[in-house]
Amino acid sequence: MNPVVPKIRMGFVGGGEGAFIGQAHRQAAGLDGGFELVCGAFSRDAQNNRQTGAALGLAASRCYSDWQLMLDTEAALPADQRMELLVIVTPNHLHAPIASQALEAGFHVFSEKPAALNLRELLALKEVLESSDRLYGLAHTYLGYPMVWQARDMVRTGVIGAVRKVLVEYPQGWLSQDVAGQGNKQAGWRDDPQQSGLGGCIGDIGTHAFSLAEFVADQPIERLCAALGTHIPGRQLDDDVSMLFQMSTGASGVLIASQVCAGEENPLKIRVYGDKGALEWRQEEPASLIHRALDQPMRTLRSGVGQPWLSEAASQRMRLPAGHPEGYLEAMANLYGDFARAIRGNVEGNEAPGVPGIQIGLRGMAFIETAVANHRGNAKWTELVCTA
Amino acid sequence: MNPVVPKIRMGFVGGGEGAFIGQAHRQAAGLDGGFELVCGAFSRDAQNNRQTGAALGLAASRCYSDWQLMLDTEAALPADQRMELLVIVTPNHLHAPIASQALEAGFHVFSEKPAALNLRELLALKEVLESSDRLYGLAHTYLGYPMVWQARDMVRTGVIGAVRKVLVEYPQGWLSQDVAGQGNKQAGWRDDPQQSGLGGCIGDIGTHAFSLAEFVADQPIERLCAALGTHIPGRQLDDDVSMLFQMSTGASGVLIASQVCAGEENPLKIRVYGDKGALEWRQEEPASLIHRALDQPMRTLRSGVGQPWLSEAASQRMRLPAGHPEGYLEAMANLYGDFARAIRGNVEGNEAPGVPGIQIGLRGMAFIETAVANHRGNAKWTELVCTA
Amino acid sequence: MNPVVPKIRMGFVGGGEGAFIGQAHRQAAGLDGGFELVCGAFSRDAQNNRQTGAALGLAASRCYSDWQLMLDTEAALPADQRMELLVIVTPNHLHAPIASQALEAGFHVFSEKPAALNLRELLALKEVLESSDRLYGLAHTYLGYPMVWQARDMVRTGVIGAVRKVLVEYPQGWLSQDVAGQGNKQAGWRDDPQQSGLGGCIGDIGTHAFSLAEFVADQPIERLCAALGTHIPGRQLDDDVSMLFQMSTGASGVLIASQVCAGEENPLKIRVYGDKGALEWRQEEPASLIHRALDQPMRTLRSGVGQPWLSEAASQRMRLPAGHPEGYLEAMANLYGDFARAIRGNVEGNEAPGVPGIQIGLRGMAFIETAVANHRGNAKWTELVCTA
Amino acid sequence: MNPVVPKIRMGFVGGGEGAFIGQAHRQAAGLDGGFELVCGAFSRDAQNNRQTGAALGLAASRCYSDWQLMLDTEAALPADQRMELLVIVTPNHLHAPIASQALEAGFHVFSEKPAALNLRELLALKEVLESSDRLYGLAHTYLGYPMVWQARDMVRTGVIGAVRKVLVEYPQGWLSQDVAGQGNKQAGWRDDPQQSGLGGCIGDIGTHAFSLAEFVADQPIERLCAALGTHIPGRQLDDDVSMLFQMSTGASGVLIASQVCAGEENPLKIRVYGDKGALEWRQEEPASLIHRALDQPMRTLRSGVGQPWLSEAASQRMRLPAGHPEGYLEAMANLYGDFARAIRGNVEGNEAPGVPGIQIGLRGMAFIETAVANHRGNAKWTELVCTA
Repeated sequence: MNPVVPKIRMGFVGGGEGAFIGQAHRQAAGLDGGFELVCGAFSRDAQNNRQTGAALGLAASRCYSDWQLMLDTEAALPADQRMELLVIVTPNHLHAPIASQALEAGFHVFSEKPAALNLRELLALKEVLESSDRLYGLAHTYLGYPMVWQARDMVRTGVIGAVRKVLVEYPQGWLSQDVAGQGNKQAGWRDDPQQSGLGGCIGDIGTHAFSLAEFVADQPIERLCAALGTHIPGRQLDDDVSMLFQMSTGASGVLIASQVCAGEENPLKIRVYGDKGALEWRQEEPASLIHRALDQPMRTLRSGVGQPWLSEAASQRMRLPAGHPEGYLEAMANLYGDFARAIRGNVEGNEAPGVPGIQIGLRGMAFIETAVANHRGNAKWTELVCTA
Repeated sequence: MNPVVPKIRMGFVGGGEGAFIGQAHRQAAGLDGGFELVCGAFSRDAQNNRQTGAALGLAASRCYSDWQLMLDTEAALPADQRMELLVIVTPNHLHAPIASQALEAGFHVFSEKPAALNLRELLALKEVLESSDRLYGLAHTYLGYPMVWQARDMVRTGVIGAVRKVLVEYPQGWLSQDVAGQGNKQAGWRDDPQQSGLGGCIGDIGTHAFSLAEFVADQPIERLCAALGTHIPGRQLDDDVSMLFQMSTGASGVLIASQVCAGEENPLKIRVYGDKGALEWRQEEPASLIHRALDQPMRTLRSGVGQPWLSEAASQRMRLPAGHPEGYLEAMANLYGDFARAIRGNVEGNEAPGVPGIQIGLRGMAFIETAVANHRGNAKWTELVCTA
Repeated sequence: MNPVVPKIRMGFVGGGEGAFIGQAHRQAAGLDGGFELVCGAFSRDAQNNRQTGAALGLAASRCYSDWQLMLDTEAALPADQRMELLVIVTPNHLHAPIASQALEAGFHVFSEKPAALNLRELLALKEVLESSDRLYGLAHTYLGYPMVWQARDMVRTGVIGAVRKVLVEYPQGWLSQDVAGQGNKQAGWRDDPQQSGLGGCIGDIGTHAFSLAEFVADQPIERLCAALGTHIPGRQLDDDVSMLFQMSTGASGVLIASQVCAGEENPLKIRVYGDKGALEWRQEEPASLIHRALDQPMRTLRSGVGQPWLSEAASQRMRLPAGHPEGYLEAMANLYGDFARAIRGNVEGNEAPGVPGIQIGLRGMAFIETAVANHRGNAKWTELVCTA
Repeated sequence: MNPVVPKIRMGFVGGGEGAFIGQAHRQAAGLDGGFELVCGAFSRDAQNNRQTGAALGLAASRCYSDWQLMLDTEAALPADQRMELLVIVTPNHLHAPIASQALEAGFHVFSEKPAALNLRELLALKEVLESSDRLYGLAHTYLGYPMVWQARDMVRTGVIGAVRKVLVEYPQGWLSQDVAGQGNKQAGWRDDPQQSGLGGCIGDIGTHAFSLAEFVADQPIERLCAALGTHIPGRQLDDDVSMLFQMSTGASGVLIASQVCAGEENPLKIRVYGDKGALEWRQEEPASLIHRALDQPMRTLRSGVGQPWLSEAASQRMRLPAGHPEGYLEAMANLYGDFARAIRGNVEGNEAPGVPGIQIGLRGMAFIETAVANHRGNAKWTELVCTA
């Protein structure tokens, strides 16, 4: 007899109607069929909360008015009914408080990034996590793309030789105007240091560029030199970042992140140059990985089930034959899939293999604080110290 | 009180382990959360069938050894438990027999294309359908892409003027070698006329190109001139198609479909030229629609929630902001979404708005038969007659 | 002592002010320094003629009021002063008459295509040519591109195996409206059968697509099935061509040429699929040749001096390191360079190696006449017979 | 009577056989027919010198063994025979000495960049120039591309609003290995500070990126922060540059230049973001200028004679209809064309309109020296002072 594989029971904090990222999480979790939504506290707005729950097929009894009530009530349910995994898709300042309490109440946590509002708060969360036996994951979605894993594996296996230069860029245009002043809620809380933290653009998307660079180049950034800018009168946080950096093996690099690059959508891009070749990947066309080997014609490696030139880690993150585009939701679904396997597999420790965890959260937070400090000072270089 | 929206209870015929398209259907149905898998007859191989069901979380009692048993048993269940929608993802020759019985047993049907093995069988299915009050849909997935709707809407509203020329092409490479002889099951049944029908490449992907051309150009093809080819010794059906055609308004066109274009993945592409401008779309980069207006610089319209230049029909088929790629599964999920709305909305008739139905199936079958007939004869042009 | 290499003395018929192609020929001839303009009959308009000559630095005595006078006068000059090569850049109907007289008067001829107005006239020219010891070349400029030679060499050496399918397309948009009626002189004579010949679009650009297909696939087209169209009221000749064809080894293909594809510039493109791989080249990005080998990632071969993967024939047709774009004038200059080497090298026969000659002209003319005949008839296929 | 337009008599220092850039200059000058090569001192190698001259059609009497002899001899020739313009295509350290003497001897000068080996030398050259009535130009070839002028004109006319961010990059790969040690002469002198100056990559191509940024953004860079690298043992000068900068209106930017980016050819690229839109241009595909206007679909402006959306300055720098690629030699020919017009037009002052002159040379030299100084120090920012 084949044992029936039960779905993982999942609850949400945040993600009421109108919140893009919450819906994206539900779609990603639904894609591969491993999860079942059983409860939620979707919005502080009671009507939005009820409507969201009903539209998602939740009984009113599992649609909670606030997250504390949800944690308490769910914890008291029978083991085979209660939520197993809490997904946190609130504004930034709530990530750590909710995660800490959920972990303490015995739930696994998958949180939108950043892990916390600042380094102090994040270290406290880390302590809670390490004293638990629960899993914790961060939605660094771009690290779920198969060709990002392919690139990392090619770096690791020496295909491009020793890394010399890393260029990573993430120009967006959606904050080119005062959209917060025009009522865009997503833009609004992002520019409030109380809800967003020390960094604006650097926290929101600079950390994506940073973690992608460290992941693909397979080494840490050790010091950096940053220039931040703010282009709209009244805007409180940075909306533009330019940065030089140096990595642990002597590789140098440039990181560009901006939200005032008019007309740009979401073209996160990385190029890694080694002494034997180079790799290039762009999120808006995620199926293609360009490989330039010294003295060879350029090759374009394409994703797709069964392509013999792909690494195992890349191949496992694909669903479709070559030429059938997979995208952002599939990348996020890869994180959910790895999280599900870790939960069902009773993985030890607090990290789900394949899923960005607290360490990536820590490095991202150190990155933000180091960059802001460097920007404000006169020193050319500032060391990126991540003690934890 | 908000009424809880129940999920649509869905069963599968076909789609056991190892069958790509069945898994794709389940992923697409799962993406937006509107469906719940309640039963299946996934494979004639009993072990595969049981394993598939268990892995999908199905109780053994809803995992049936054959589809007739499933139809009978499900029909006898209480109305609030029984399957509502049957998804058919078997080889071609079973599509019509299963669909007919399922409709007669009171189930909605969503079937892989083609609707039937030949025109006669298809007309019989159509009769069954029309005497029922059930909905019937065909997985012409490429018609679920938002920018395909955008293109059609731009043609309809006269943006490119009167259509003059339509170029549609679909070159694949996966049958460049004798993969059936090497054990590829997908390739195997596709080359068996008993399971696949009269057409090989022309049925498998030529019909996609054909229906895309008629959909975007918003008019029927009236006559055609075709050359088919078969390139592997022992292969029974065509693997290559080149065709001239003429449409109802006088527009002319070219259709290319092939499965022996070495190295090509899945670049279905359409270009429509009118007297005021032109449109171009390519499935492998589905977020971009190129618009060339006479005497204007080329524009690239990009998909994305909230883009003001997109039509309503296109906008409704998107989930993410611009620059976050959506792909093949999202296109198929759009068909599932429209099917769910039609079921829940108790739409009258047998077609779910937005979902390709029996008419598109009929035209596709007439297309295959006309092309094969033209290829075999000496006449230059053959009328494409679709009496139904 | 190194012998000084004298420039080849060159005269023009046609190419007065306002004529794009004449200026392009002078620029191409000037690029590599092998030619010296010594005389011209640039325009029937006496003022245009004088102004053009003066602007080009010609003494009034070598600026002739008509081409007959030029041929007579130049032939009477001392051998070290007289024109050696006549370049013909007039409307089509004058090509053959001028070429014949020039050859008889002892001049080499480089002519714009087509070689003649019809097959009869062309065969007469061929006789004149073969009874002379002069060289004759045709400005099939696209056959001067280095990556076109690279593609042909890769086909010849079996890199892509046996050719199965050839797709060649040449969609332009500049005749989408009645530009002749609006005074465009280039469009005007092209639509006059007396000046242009039997074919409109098929002669003007269809022949480029045709000769490119035969050149790269390295085999003749044997039969074809054509549909021609004319889209502007009052237009006399075709402005749109769609065609199926079959080649001598059994390869099949499609040829598309149009001048009513709104918004298209000059994207002549060819794809050749063999049983081991495929090649793709597009004139608007001429430095890149895409190579898809079976079961290998796509490669992009780039032009550039010193690239080790390029054939000798391709490498000889480049001037600059990779990444420094060469274009249309450089391609034409390659034809001029080969013509100069042939003249200086006293090549035997009437063809300059590397330069399209009377044979390509003949096949192009047979192509036009065959396509028009097929279009007008009811037979599906017409043999392309080229007896000469 | 139309006065005959005589060609400008031109001589070369440098550019013997095997020197790519000298040949490129002759091809560019030959393209539009405005120049006549009358003399040269092509190489210190007597045989190479003679062979080059003879191959170019020069009489032995005008092929000089050294440039001093050439200047003296030519200056003594009758005014209607002697060289008018001296083109300098030697290694860097000879640019200024030759240019100074040539100007003093009464010749116009068109020099490869940089204008001099260092700032001191350049200021001395500037004095000589300003005390003459001759014209001086620098081969900043990329400033000859029509779409670069189009971009600058769109910035100037406010199409993209106030400039916020400028990203310019120039990654090459040809020095990824020790090619100088392997005998590559181009690489050899470039790495010798006595012949090349203070900068390696930053001087060779960093200055191109720098001048392109200032030209298109239409404003000076005021301060910068640079990190230089050298990656090959034994290499003396930098081969890699990363830089942050700030411009006079508050715009910030990033400049990347490298010659160790394995596999890269010559993809000089600039993006300029303003508060109303953005522009993007890439040298390897020079006919396309991407324009992103806020809240509009992306437009691709294409070069081509007669495109109504192009500025006058851009249109004047094109020869061919859209879709007929023009490239690097055409860009350089545009500089030659402007230089010819200035000479024939007896322009006052020392700069030929449209041709980069001594001011651009000065800024480029200040850029090199400022970047090297910043790189060596600990200060974050260094002002770019250009007193002249």
